[in-house]
Formats: sequence, structure tokens, C-alpha cells
Amino acid sequence: MKNEDVMNIAKKRGFLWSSFEIYSGVAGFFDYGPLGAILKNKIMNKWRNFYIVGEGFYEIESPTIMPEEALQASGHVDHFNDPMTECKECLEVFRADHIIKETTGEEVEGLENQKLTEIISAEEIRCPRCGGHLTHVWSYNLMFQTLIGAKGKKTGYMRPETAQGIFIPFKRLLRFYRGKLPFGVVQLGKAYRNEISPRQGMIRLREFTQAEAEIFVNPADKSHPHFQDVADHVLTLYPADIQEEEGEPVKITAKKAVQQGVVSSEMLTYQLCLADKFMAELGIPVDVIRFRQHLKTEMAHYAIDCWDVEVYTDRYGWIEVIGIADRTDFDLKSHSEYSSEDLRVFIEYDEPRNITKTVAKPDMKKFGPLFKKDAPKIMNALKETDPDAIKLAFAESNVYDLQLEGETYQLTPDLLSFEEVEETVRGEKIYPHVIEPSYGIDRITYSVLLHCFKQEDDRNILCLPADLAPVGANVFPLVNKDDLVLVSTHIRDDLRIQGIIAELDTSGTIGRRYARSDEIGTPFAVTIDHQTLEDKTVTIRERDTQKQVRLPVTKIPDTVNELLNKKINFSDLEDT
Amino acid sequence: MKNEDVMNIAKKRGFLWSSFEIYSGVAGFFDYGPLGAILKNKIMNKWRNFYIVGEGFYEIESPTIMPEEALQASGHVDHFNDPMTECKECLEVFRADHIIKETTGEEVEGLENQKLTEIISAEEIRCPRCGGHLTHVWSYNLMFQTLIGAKGKKTGYMRPETAQGIFIPFKRLLRFYRGKLPFGVVQLGKAYRNEISPRQGMIRLREFTQAEAEIFVNPADKSHPHFQDVADHVLTLYPADIQEEEGEPVKITAKKAVQQGVVSSEMLTYQLCLADKFMAELGIPVDVIRFRQHLKTEMAHYAIDCWDVEVYTDRYGWIEVIGIADRTDFDLKSHSEYSSEDLRVFIEYDEPRNITKTVAKPDMKKFGPLFKKDAPKIMNALKETDPDAIKLAFAESNVYDLQLEGETYQLTPDLLSFEEVEETVRGEKIYPHVIEPSYGIDRITYSVLLHCFKQEDDRNILCLPADLAPVGANVFPLVNKDDLVLVSTHIRDDLRIQGIIAELDTSGTIGRRYARSDEIGTPFAVTIDHQTLEDKTVTIRERDTQKQVRLPVTKIPDTVNELLNKKINFSDLEDT
Repeated sequence: MKNEDVMNIAKKRGFLWSSFEIYSGVAGFFDYGPLGAILKNKIMNKWRNFYIVGEGFYEIESPTIMPEEALQASGHVDHFNDPMTECKECLEVFRADHIIKETTGEEVEGLENQKLTEIISAEEIRCPRCGGHLTHVWSYNLMFQTLIGAKGKKTGYMRPETAQGIFIPFKRLLRFYRGKLPFGVVQLGKAYRNEISPRQGMIRLREFTQAEAEIFVNPADKSHPHFQDVADHVLTLYPADIQEEEGEPVKITAKKAVQQGVVSSEMLTYQLCLADKFMAELGIPVDVIRFRQHLKTEMAHYAIDCWDVEVYTDRYGWIEVIGIADRTDFDLKSHSEYSSEDLRVFIEYDEPRNITKTVAKPDMKKFGPLFKKDAPKIMNALKETDPDAIKLAFAESNVYDLQLEGETYQLTPDLLSFEEVEETVRGEKIYPHVIEPSYGIDRITYSVLLHCFKQEDDRNILCLPADLAPVGANVFPLVNKDDLVLVSTHIRDDLRIQGIIAELDTSGTIGRRYARSDEIGTPFAVTIDHQTLEDKTVTIRERDTQKQVRLPVTKIPDTVNELLNKKINFSDLEDT
Repeated sequence: MKNEDVMNIAKKRGFLWSSFEIYSGVAGFFDYGPLGAILKNKIMNKWRNFYIVGEGFYEIESPTIMPEEALQASGHVDHFNDPMTECKECLEVFRADHIIKETTGEEVEGLENQKLTEIISAEEIRCPRCGGHLTHVWSYNLMFQTLIGAKGKKTGYMRPETAQGIFIPFKRLLRFYRGKLPFGVVQLGKAYRNEISPRQGMIRLREFTQAEAEIFVNPADKSHPHFQDVADHVLTLYPADIQEEEGEPVKITAKKAVQQGVVSSEMLTYQLCLADKFMAELGIPVDVIRFRQHLKTEMAHYAIDCWDVEVYTDRYGWIEVIGIADRTDFDLKSHSEYSSEDLRVFIEYDEPRNITKTVAKPDMKKFGPLFKKDAPKIMNALKETDPDAIKLAFAESNVYDLQLEGETYQLTPDLLSFEEVEETVRGEKIYPHVIEPSYGIDRITYSVLLHCFKQEDDRNILCLPADLAPVGANVFPLVNKDDLVLVSTHIRDDLRIQGIIAELDTSGTIGRRYARSDEIGTPFAVTIDHQTLEDKTVTIRERDTQKQVRLPVTKIPDTVNELLNKKINFSDLEDT
């Protein structure tokens, strides 16, 4: 179905609608309605099941408001910008790259402001609204700013990504994992981008939900212990070089993608496969999914490799719903520098290594008389001093000035001898690299709705996988009579005791009730009729096939539970 | 255990820590670590199970950033304030009511700024930090403010409560529920309070998580259809009048609480019982829970009745963790006025009612000639005009001035006759009242940790209910040998396939591993020993009793699953 039709049904049925409608709305904000919120939560719980239960990662939750220092370290204060231009006539503002693309068709994302200004001038691009002249292009920071505390002097921002909340307490997380790499930490929650003028529905939100995993690995070892499990998984990859040649995406196994160097590591490829499996479980068809590698020009300067999972949409073309990147050690290194905390990890060698190193040894007979009570502390300081620096100073000037507690002590070659000593080293400290799958939950929810809605002979069917359906089962008395309604109510309640969201619907013809049930994606409907009163059996109907089977009332709760959790198929059921 | 000990373990073990530690921290913000985030999520999922599956309410999700108009309507822009005072010497700021209470012991919350200023002056209260003089008390708005969009002219705030996000789309929600009261809508998510100087750990956060239910009811009917289910439930109530007499809380059944008018309605009392049951399922002992009614002076002016669920803490005394209020029609009425949208509900009478009403009938013979082509529209306008207003005008001045599209038409008694007519009315439009249980999830999580941590013979045990435990089962090879570790790994993996978070721990003595397992609240530990290799049995140990039972390996996943979901008790297990 088309975007417009899907969004209309979604609004009418209570999946999604624009926020603050009674106050004329605010662009870039959406509400999840009663059915949408359940769907979104089920998608997030499936994600948790993949990453937390399946991969053994742990979730944390950090604040959405962050102090400026932390976002200076991450680079967001300086670099999280969009190029903006304003109409000199009507004062409307626009993203410069967007209006250039709309006018010329050229992709100019990532170009410098100066260059964009030149293009606007050269192409004589005018205000799309009133035709007025546009100003020079300037950088506009996309973070929502606020002030923390009563004194109003502490600047804070709404976080632009959940990832930073994982890097900041890295030392505590490392301790939780007892100092050993690799380990993964995830966060699900809100992130914010104060878009200049969002006009793309669910695709460009100012407030959105991310699910991000940060997997900390030894840079020297990006293999994956369970790579064998995915080796034969076939991915639809669209590597940068093929994009540049304007070729088509290729289907290739995970194993070959690594062997041929299409994806940079086993660890990253494993993550692509996991994302692919996740999307499949959401019911999104494989032919509308591709993995597009970032071009050199669009990749963050610190990233080694980055792949977007893209979903095809009729309205917006291919949209990114997941980004999977090797962020290297950029974030931890940067937070180390800004915070002066050592965020490195001690990596133990497989075997301790013997290394030879030079040490400067003081001549005790001369040291004592010369430096008297200061001698011990000078000797200590000497241990921390690079012997090569001393050697260099001796070679140049025959004296090395040792600075210590404000004093300068002159060391001359006669006071020291240099010796080569053997030492056993157990390991070294390194900054881990970070592999990051970053999921845009809102875009994924939108994609699920878009690709699961089907129209068949005037029926609207939301063909959600059974375990994602907001309402698990509808219960219908064939006619609205007290005795049938009473039995129906009991069945509804028994289903709820099993933890299933079940609804009783008595209004309208049975056909109309099936139609409503199909449109909101309820996989099963239980119908109570006059026969029920005689032999205590009911019919259960499957949404997708419209097939019905007659079962004893007592079997309904367990059967629906097993159907929803995919422990049995509807075709396994037999008429009683 | 004491607050301090619990918080130390919570920090060390990865439940909770102050946010942004490497940047010296920011008061009022906490991270949920790997174990804390699971615990919090499990508490929220239990809440969903109570309110969504159990009560049949639906969840929605609205943005955390809200435009100013909406918060003007809710009263937060004008009234969500704290009284503030500043030290004239050191410029530190304080909550005026707090420092008065700290100095004099008097509870002065809710007093006017002028009054607080007088008390500070009369009691000669000085800056608690430097002893300097304090300024006049002024109102400080507690919302985090930001700007939406690139033009920087649209003010927004981080929402102060999730509730408003439910009131705003009320019309859509009413349509979802097909126009019928009562219905409930819930929201779980972040809310924000820019506290002046939060210094109470988890108790006073600037960013916190709420779970709120808004139950829309007919003001004429605050009964509850399932009140019978809770009628005999015993509540510990602390009504306002008993507080004023400095008496003790009373234990009373729900039924009596309603009959004796202690709580204002069945609907509200039912909600108190539901909250009580929820707290019991979290493992918080009944003797540290009480329901305290708001005093007249502390209750919001629009509320009819309000009860706080309070939990006792050694450090902060009784703290509010849930508020349950009858908010009447304040919010919907106010949003109707500010937005000019009709947020009323049509209530159909049980039987249509015949009413007699006066209508003003035009004398057609005179109307036509007098008003000519305007006659039809004047007649239409007449239908919308209150006949009593016309009668009054006639009595006073023999003329009624009808204003219509900028014109004034003079109607005189000879042009109209008044008739009494009978009319059948099906119902009327009313503003629903709102019953609101509002849960503070962070304080509840803190209460769970505080009251579930126990110390026994030098063992630290986190006695969480099994279904809340972050790690469901630990798997221990008795000694760290390859064959035992291999079997242990398989058992761990089989548990994870069941959706259970299970961990393998091979480091340290078995005693030390049990101790670690108990301290993070893992209810069950499976130990693999040499006998396992011979007869394929393992021991399973219960955290609280330290009892062990030997079971076949094959039974472990199902058994642990049933134990965690409380389908069986550990004492039901028998040694093989």
C-alpha cells in the first residue's frame, strides 16, 4: 500500500497521529496511539530479546539531558550542524543542501557552507516559498539547548544519540565486565534533533527513539566467536565502489563478504547479519531491504567502515533505518582527553613478554653526598624519567635538568650509568574499538506498517507477524445477546489472564467486525455462536487465510498463546 | 539495610550510579547500570501487565518536548514553581521552604512568597553555606525550557508530567474507545523538573520516569464494575483528619473506606487497592507502606481527593512513590478553553428524556416584508438565540438587538410569539472526570532495592521476587576445568534460548560465586560438578533458603522458567 493510505489508516485506527493537533501541531513530532505504542514496544522487546538475551549484552539507561562538556568531547557542540539559509524577503529558513537538491537534483550533503553559498548564487536558487533572495549559508546546531539548575549558568542539551551515555560511564561498565573485552552495552531511548523544517512525516522527527549497541572490542581482534553461525547467511550488499559505478546491489554470503574484504571485519559482518534477521522477524520482505555502504565522502572521519540498512518506500525512496559502523577508538579517546580519565583497557598478552629496556642507575656514592636528604626523591623521579631523554641531554650539553617540586637538580654523566635490563610485561593498555549498530525505532515501526499493510478484494489487512500484533485476539459473540456475550466475556478474561491483549467486540455485523479486526492486524478471532451454548465449542479464525477451525472453549487460551508465540501453526489445528 | 549501604552495593554491582561522573557529575541525574536497567524495565513491564493486560487500558506515547501553549493550558507555565531565595554574599540559591524547614522544623510548603520572606526575616535565617543574608523569595519555574525550530521563536519545555500527553489527543482517544466512558489510557516515560538544588540522591531527580494512568469517568458515576474483587482488601490509610489530630494510620477494608466516606469514591478506592497489590508484588513489605491523604492545604485546588502511597526509608523518612488523585474535569476543561476544541463527551441517557422548552417563533407575515432577503438568515439566527434573553430585553426595553454578520436587526414583540414545545433529548455533553494513579518509577525502584537488600551472617542478599531479578540464573562449573565449563556453557545457552538471562561464572571459589550471585539477587544457581559428567545431573540452589536439589540437566531450562514465573515453588522440587 501507499504511504498516504497507510498513514490514513494508522491515524484512523489509533497507531500514529501528529502531536499537539488541538494546538495546530508542531512539525517533527508524532504520537503513538493505543495500537502504535504496543507495536513499538513489541518491536523494542524483540530487539532486547535479540541483543540482551541472544547476544548477552546488557542495557543501561542514562539521562536524555546532558551537560555541555560531555557533548564537546563527543564533537556534537562543534560539528552536529546543518547548513542553513534564510529568505531575505519572507524570513523563512531552509536547509541549504535540501533546497539545492530540490532545484538541481544534485546531492550536495557534506559540502562546505562557502561552496553551498556559491552554488545557490551560481544556480540562481530563490526562496521556494516566495521567490525571494537567500542569505549566505551558515551552520546551525541541531541540538535542543537548555539550562540546568536555578542559576541558569550551566548549559545542557537534549542528547543527539543514546551512544554517548554508554561511553561516559565506560570505566564502570568495564568493571562490571571484570575488565575483559569484548563486551556489548545497549541503550534504548529518546534522542533529539532540532531539525530546521521537518516535512517528512515519521521519517524526520525532532524527537525519536533509538536502540543502540556499543560493542567494545580489541582493535587487534575483530573476529567473532560465533561467526560460523552466520557464515552462510546471504546479505544484499551495495558496496561503495558499486554505487560509484552506478551498479546494482549484490547478494553475497557473510563468509564471502569478509573473505573478499567487502565488509571490513567479521565483527561488523556478524552485526549486518543480525540486523537482517531482525528485520525479517518484523515481517519486512527481503526485497525491500538492502545494506548500503557509506561512500568515503559521507562517512564520519573517524569511522573505518559504515553500512546503512535501507528500506524501500514509495514516498521517500530508500530510507536508512539502521546504521552499523566501526567507530574505532574515537569516542573513548576523546572522552579520555576531555575528562582526563584513563578510559583504556588492560589487555593481557597470551604469554608474558620479555622486553629489554634501558634504565639510568645512579652512582650511590656520589648521589648521597651531593643531594643529601633530597637523594631518595631524586632517585624515585629518575625511575619515571625516560632514559633516552637523559642520554640526549648528555649528548647535547653534558647536563640534564631534573625538575622536581619546583626545584631543578642538575644531573651530569658522572652521576649515572645506563644499563640494559630484562623485564617481563604481562600486557598493555589500549583504547578499545567500538562496533555500533544503531536502530531508528520510529522509522522501523513505520516500515513495518508500510510493508505489512495489504489490500485484498477490498479487505485491508495488516499482516503483522503474530507476535507483534497489538491485539492478540478478538472475541466476537455472533449476535449481541446476553448469553453469548457472557460466554464471550469469560473467554476474553481467560485470554487476558494468559497475558494476551484480547478484546470483546459486539457492535456491527460479524463481517464488519472481522474487517476491523483484520485492519488492525489482530491475527486471531474467536467467535461464539449458538452451538457454543450446546457443545462448548467456538470457532477460531486466522486473519491471513480467513480459515476457521472449531475448538473446545477450554482449549482457547493455551491455543492462542501457542499460536501467538509461534509454537504451533494455525494449520496444525484440527476441527474437533 | 541502610540507604548508604544499599547505594554502595548498588553502585559497586552496576545497579545505579551518578551520571556524568567523569565530568564531575551533575546533581539530580542518575544512570541505571546493567543490572538496574533490567530491574527497572521489569518493574515497568509488571506495571503494564497490571494496567494494560489486567485493567484493559491502552498505552500511548507522546513527545517529551511540548509547545508552550499546551503547558499554558495545563497551568504549568504559571504555577509549576518553587519559592527561591539567593544568598546576597555567596550567590548560592536555595528553596526557601526547604531552608525554613531545616532551620525551624516547620512545614511551610505551599505558603505565599511574601509569607516565606517574612518568616526568613523574623527567624533571622541565614545562608546555610556562608551565613550571608538571603534575598526576598521569588517564584522559579521548574520546567526545562528550550526553543523549537531554527527561527528560535517557538518556546518549548520538557514535559513536567506524562499526563498532559494523554489529555491533548483526548478526542482521538475517545474515538478509539468509540465514544464510551469509562476508559483508561496510560503513558510511561520521562518527565523533568529543573530542581533548584537537588541533594537527595534518587529521591529528587531532575529527569525521572513516570507511569501514569488517566481514567476518564462519568462524573455522575464513580462506581467501579469490579469493586467486589477488592471490597475485602485491607488498606493502611492515613486520612487527613487523623493526620491533623496527629493520630496513627488505620487498617480498613476497601468496602468500609467507601462506606464511611474515608476515600471519596469506589473508583478511587479501587485504584488504591491496585497500587497496594502492585507494591506487594515488588516485594516491599506491607509495614513500610501507607496511604496518606493530602491535607486540604496541600491538595491541588481542582482535585477532590488525593492519596499518596508512601514508603518508609531510614534516610528520608516516608517518601511519596505514587500519587492517586481525582483531578475532576480541570485538565480537559482547560485544554478545551485554550484550544477552542470541544473535549466533551456525549453521554446517552438510559431513556430518552422529554423536555419542555420555550421557542421564539417569528410572525412570517411581518418578517418577510420587513427584513426582505435577510429574513431567512435572521430566522436561522433566532433558533440559536436564548429565548429568555429576548424575553428579558422585551420586558426591559420592548426591543431585542440581534447582532448578525456585523449588522444589527431590531426585533420587537409584535414580530415574535413564544411557544412551549416538547422535545426528546437522547443525552447531554459533559466533561469527564479523571482518576489518576501516577507512579514514580525511580523512587519505586529505589524502594525495592532498599527493602529487598538483607544482611544475614555476613551474606548480602538481594531478596528480589524471582520475576524481577535481573539475572534469572547463574551457572557455575564447580571447578574451572574444560569439561565442566563446556557442559556449563551448554546449560547457559539453553537457558537463554528460553528467554532467561543466564550467566556463566568460572572465577573464584564456589562460595565466592554464590555470594556474588546472592548480592545481585539471582534467585537460582545451577552447579555442574564431576557427578554431572557421570549421570547428567546438576544441583540447583535457591538464593533465599540456600537449599540445593539435584536434577537432570535436561529438566533445567523448563524448571528454571517455571520457578521464575512462579508456576512452581522451589520446595515442590524433589531430589532425583
